[in-house]
Amino acid sequence: MKNTFGNSISLTLFGESHGAYIGAVLDGLTPGISINEAFIRSQLDKRRPVGKIGTARHEADEFQIVSGAFEGKTTGTPLTILIPNTAQHSKDYSATRSLARPGHADYTAYAKYHGYEDYRGGGHFSGRVTAALVAAGAILISALQEKGIVIATHIRSCAGIADGEFGDIKADIKKLNELDFAVLDNEKGEAMKKAIEAAAAEGDSVGGVLETAVLGVSAGVGEPWFDTVEGVLSHALFSVPAVKGVEFGDAFSMVNGKGSDYNDNFYISEKEIKTTTNHNGGINGGITNGMPIMFRCAVKPTPSIFKAQDTVDFMKKENSVLELKGRHDPAVIHRARVVVDSVTALALADLLALRYGTDYLASLS
Amino acid sequence: MKNTFGNSISLTLFGESHGAYIGAVLDGLTPGISINEAFIRSQLDKRRPVGKIGTARHEADEFQIVSGAFEGKTTGTPLTILIPNTAQHSKDYSATRSLARPGHADYTAYAKYHGYEDYRGGGHFSGRVTAALVAAGAILISALQEKGIVIATHIRSCAGIADGEFGDIKADIKKLNELDFAVLDNEKGEAMKKAIEAAAAEGDSVGGVLETAVLGVSAGVGEPWFDTVEGVLSHALFSVPAVKGVEFGDAFSMVNGKGSDYNDNFYISEKEIKTTTNHNGGINGGITNGMPIMFRCAVKPTPSIFKAQDTVDFMKKENSVLELKGRHDPAVIHRARVVVDSVTALALADLLALRYGTDYLASLS
Amino acid sequence: MKNTFGNSISLTLFGESHGAYIGAVLDGLTPGISINEAFIRSQLDKRRPVGKIGTARHEADEFQIVSGAFEGKTTGTPLTILIPNTAQHSKDYSATRSLARPGHADYTAYAKYHGYEDYRGGGHFSGRVTAALVAAGAILISALQEKGIVIATHIRSCAGIADGEFGDIKADIKKLNELDFAVLDNEKGEAMKKAIEAAAAEGDSVGGVLETAVLGVSAGVGEPWFDTVEGVLSHALFSVPAVKGVEFGDAFSMVNGKGSDYNDNFYISEKEIKTTTNHNGGINGGITNGMPIMFRCAVKPTPSIFKAQDTVDFMKKENSVLELKGRHDPAVIHRARVVVDSVTALALADLLALRYGTDYLASLS
Amino acid sequence: MKNTFGNSISLTLFGESHGAYIGAVLDGLTPGISINEAFIRSQLDKRRPVGKIGTARHEADEFQIVSGAFEGKTTGTPLTILIPNTAQHSKDYSATRSLARPGHADYTAYAKYHGYEDYRGGGHFSGRVTAALVAAGAILISALQEKGIVIATHIRSCAGIADGEFGDIKADIKKLNELDFAVLDNEKGEAMKKAIEAAAAEGDSVGGVLETAVLGVSAGVGEPWFDTVEGVLSHALFSVPAVKGVEFGDAFSMVNGKGSDYNDNFYISEKEIKTTTNHNGGINGGITNGMPIMFRCAVKPTPSIFKAQDTVDFMKKENSVLELKGRHDPAVIHRARVVVDSVTALALADLLALRYGTDYLASLS
Repeated sequence: MKNTFGNSISLTLFGESHGAYIGAVLDGLTPGISINEAFIRSQLDKRRPVGKIGTARHEADEFQIVSGAFEGKTTGTPLTILIPNTAQHSKDYSATRSLARPGHADYTAYAKYHGYEDYRGGGHFSGRVTAALVAAGAILISALQEKGIVIATHIRSCAGIADGEFGDIKADIKKLNELDFAVLDNEKGEAMKKAIEAAAAEGDSVGGVLETAVLGVSAGVGEPWFDTVEGVLSHALFSVPAVKGVEFGDAFSMVNGKGSDYNDNFYISEKEIKTTTNHNGGINGGITNGMPIMFRCAVKPTPSIFKAQDTVDFMKKENSVLELKGRHDPAVIHRARVVVDSVTALALADLLALRYGTDYLASLS
Repeated sequence: MKNTFGNSISLTLFGESHGAYIGAVLDGLTPGISINEAFIRSQLDKRRPVGKIGTARHEADEFQIVSGAFEGKTTGTPLTILIPNTAQHSKDYSATRSLARPGHADYTAYAKYHGYEDYRGGGHFSGRVTAALVAAGAILISALQEKGIVIATHIRSCAGIADGEFGDIKADIKKLNELDFAVLDNEKGEAMKKAIEAAAAEGDSVGGVLETAVLGVSAGVGEPWFDTVEGVLSHALFSVPAVKGVEFGDAFSMVNGKGSDYNDNFYISEKEIKTTTNHNGGINGGITNGMPIMFRCAVKPTPSIFKAQDTVDFMKKENSVLELKGRHDPAVIHRARVVVDSVTALALADLLALRYGTDYLASLS
Repeated sequence: MKNTFGNSISLTLFGESHGAYIGAVLDGLTPGISINEAFIRSQLDKRRPVGKIGTARHEADEFQIVSGAFEGKTTGTPLTILIPNTAQHSKDYSATRSLARPGHADYTAYAKYHGYEDYRGGGHFSGRVTAALVAAGAILISALQEKGIVIATHIRSCAGIADGEFGDIKADIKKLNELDFAVLDNEKGEAMKKAIEAAAAEGDSVGGVLETAVLGVSAGVGEPWFDTVEGVLSHALFSVPAVKGVEFGDAFSMVNGKGSDYNDNFYISEKEIKTTTNHNGGINGGITNGMPIMFRCAVKPTPSIFKAQDTVDFMKKENSVLELKGRHDPAVIHRARVVVDSVTALALADLLALRYGTDYLASLS
Repeated sequence: MKNTFGNSISLTLFGESHGAYIGAVLDGLTPGISINEAFIRSQLDKRRPVGKIGTARHEADEFQIVSGAFEGKTTGTPLTILIPNTAQHSKDYSATRSLARPGHADYTAYAKYHGYEDYRGGGHFSGRVTAALVAAGAILISALQEKGIVIATHIRSCAGIADGEFGDIKADIKKLNELDFAVLDNEKGEAMKKAIEAAAAEGDSVGGVLETAVLGVSAGVGEPWFDTVEGVLSHALFSVPAVKGVEFGDAFSMVNGKGSDYNDNFYISEKEIKTTTNHNGGINGGITNGMPIMFRCAVKPTPSIFKAQDTVDFMKKENSVLELKGRHDPAVIHRARVVVDSVTALALADLLALRYGTDYLASLS
């Protein structure tokens, strides 16, 4: 289904960096969900570049909900969000049109779209499209929160600097969602920012690992084969720009240990079934076990760098050299975090609506 | 779609460990694909437990194709494979029916299926179901091979022992597919086996990392949002039992480096566009770039261990202790490798058929 | 999705007339549904040819549920039904292999499957495949009945002879479901049978109209665009062999009338909203209004006739003449009726599960 | 998937009668399709109310393509069309908000959306939403035409007046597509218009039958079970407002005849396989046979009439009387015709793209 994700609740993304609008259609929403425009705006702000570690493009990210909402609530019909592209530079992209930026999708877009793609500013591959995803995700995040399901992501590491670890997850989620630069340890966060600035000063870029926690999903959600919680979440997460790896729980650490080290033992706590550890990230056999859902995304260093790079002219089929100019993020990890939260909300809302019906998200009184 | 994967080519899995049959329905196959029963059998053999490092259950894995094939070729209608369950132990599972094996799906199955699940031998969650997946995958692997697309997986590491690295990928793929224990360096393979045996001797288990290479997929396959090649492949890969993490290219290594370290520069080689390195695993912006598709799966240590483990009786909701008896694999990674190849073939065949039409896989003369 | 129907509850059909088995996989069933084997058998019997107006092929229609059921109830995992093909004639089909039977799918199958199709006895297009559909449908019909939703179909007309009309729909549904030849007026039924026999005596065939009533679906099910109740039901109904037209309510009668004749006025009856008439068949704007869902299927005369017919040899591409021999139904409408009920149950169960969650069909105490 | 139709090529509809925009997202389009804005406009004009037989609302139907197009051609990314709602009357709908218009979706919308629906002017159920469908359909109709596939619909009957029949289908299609009021016999068309005016004068409305012909689809498209050409087309056709019945070929006429009357005999004509008659509407066994695809839609009389009607207040749950005021169409059949063409193009384009790949529609030189 290409640019659409979800079965019961589905999101369709559209738009190009230099088109009139980017946007999203959210379908399958239960009627009666409150639309908190201030929250949508605050989520969009988290995605926007900030200060020295961001780029120069400061778009207002004005959004407009043009269908599916009435008197401040969802109607249950497709909800469409439009975000105008107001700050496109009028620069001429044609000079570098056929030079493949290493690590970017210029060449693969050309291979796929036979040259008909809108190549300006990354076109449909532009990270800008995530603004629509974040706006739509904000509606789902609010709705899940009404059902007691909360999500947050922190920068577990950036440029080799490790953040603190989750402690009291509930409190940490609350705290993280109030931050622009989502770290558990502010000192580590300052060090990360310095590292990003240092990379920027060299015309280079950095990456890192995002770690997400979800509280409040009850046991028994997901499917044993194919539509495992891991499968559905990862399917969506790989659409977050620069994400190249996803692990649930302690996947890539467990590989060197033994079963006795990493089995999560069950116990009863206040009549509820819990596990003493959570190496499996709240999922057994593809299905939630009631513990926090925990996963990590590997965010590669932003491919846009200012150093001269060997590449090809894919139309002329000859070797060339590329020197990028203009504005580019030396890191996207701090911005990607809210995109991760958004696709997480989408994937979980869809799984929950399939399981419990389309009215599940309703807070009908 | 639960136990079904794929849009143009789809696979539906069914069966329980102790039911009459497990099986699979493959739909959307082009007519005229040769069915190589010997190859299906050899793939099933790779999945079966072997020697000291396997379990005692030696089922014949007889399979029967009961629809969708005629005179040795696919007809284009749904192809159904049945594998009878012949070696079930008649043991009584009711004693431990409600004791959750840590790391397993017993409790989550109960939470999802309200106690109606067939709990004997893991039921529908049993690794045995992967036999049907492997048999179906064998047909797709053969068909892809006819189109010049080859797949192989090696045990990149097991119990902390690292295998050699891919060199001449084409030759390595050929070699790996002839091996039962898929390593590039036989000495390392012997060490891994010893480590598995050692873990078994302690009643414990080990895990590792599988690394897969795919050659022959042309540039331009996949979608920019949601149905990225990474998203579609990972969706399927998390159904391979014990897989808890997936990285494309060098995802979790790249996170600590810089853009200048990890951008894959393009160059022209014999009129074809290639990259000097392949840190992105053959995928840019969710779309294949013509380089080998490379990814790794984190396989956690098998949760079945023979040490006493604290757990709960999830029906009585009380703490308990579990001591497993019977046959259990001290490692599944060497068997999971052919399951990874199978779901990879499924995901790629579907993406290719969507792109190039349902007759894409045909070798019609 | 080809041979699969449904999103939340899905059915996959497989098998050929002369293969080892035909069968079906039902996925998305809630756990705990009672499996009434006697009812499945009785539904299969309704589909089987009977007496003079049926064909000579009397297969036992033994079925086996090989997955997804445990201790007499659904487990919630994919439920697979196998029906062995025991009574295939060993006759040689090769002589007429490339003569297109008019009104049949021989030529279109050849065009689609490039000659690889299993052509014996209609292959995958054989009405025999509906046995699997009926067996699966029986499980859904039982489950819906537990929720107060009942379905029945009568032969509204056959060979130009009109049956009586629905009166007390609830009582009529009960009565019809006890009949082998489903008519409201037995005399008309006897006349229909005579007409079928008369057609058979001439080597000819007849068709008719099936009319279906569904009681118990509450108001508010269905979608405004695309997944309208009419759209979803008709999508499934056109898979019933020989069905070429579907009308909801009085569609093809209303076309000549006026709005004032055919608007269904609303009124309050015992605090419930009803309509005085039901020309719209219980559906307004694609969504159920709580009135009985009513629709009719046009069943064309069976294409298998014993008169010599002009046709082509589609492999030689030359004109030819065909004289059918062997067993063929002079009418299928009395058998198709239970297939209509089955696909109706499938389409409605899927819509209801999407709306109210996968546990909707559960009668969990 | 609710408001989305299609697998390989998909259309998502959004918008309410009185929202800011209605619109559509077309995904899966091959890159390089020429966008003929004049043709889109002319299709939109065919859908607009005209003269005495239309309503007073004359919206400009200005459309804007805001994504997925670049330099006059499709890019291959989601193409979004926006149509602003400029002519909403500012009238107060709240007085009649809970009075169910008979034959309309007011009550079913309330039952489905729990009162959160945007009730103004029919909201998401408004026929106005079809403008977006027609604009999107125009792009597909153009693209299919490049591949030699042409579609047209005529008003086979209206208010009991029958149009002429298709003769030279190719010429008739060409002619019909140039007409605003699509009839084969102009005199009959004038009589129909008079009948519509007469009904309008009485405050009443009329319906009719639309008949569609499609030329140029080769044999072998469609699936034997579920995704039959009939099933897929009808699924889409029931979204055309007021369509309550669909028949392929001569379905509802064949029911009273014999097999020998209605089997379509094959013959060879200039090395091509044809049928002497086309009672099956170009489809055998769910699959195209290369003959023209022919079907008819029953369009009920428009439910909006100006006579006093008994109805209920569904919020107060009490009987009431409704007298409609304002603008309402005495017939929609002449406008629905272009909506039928549009959904036909959508369903066929999807089937063809699934079969032949996403680049099928490309006219890449």
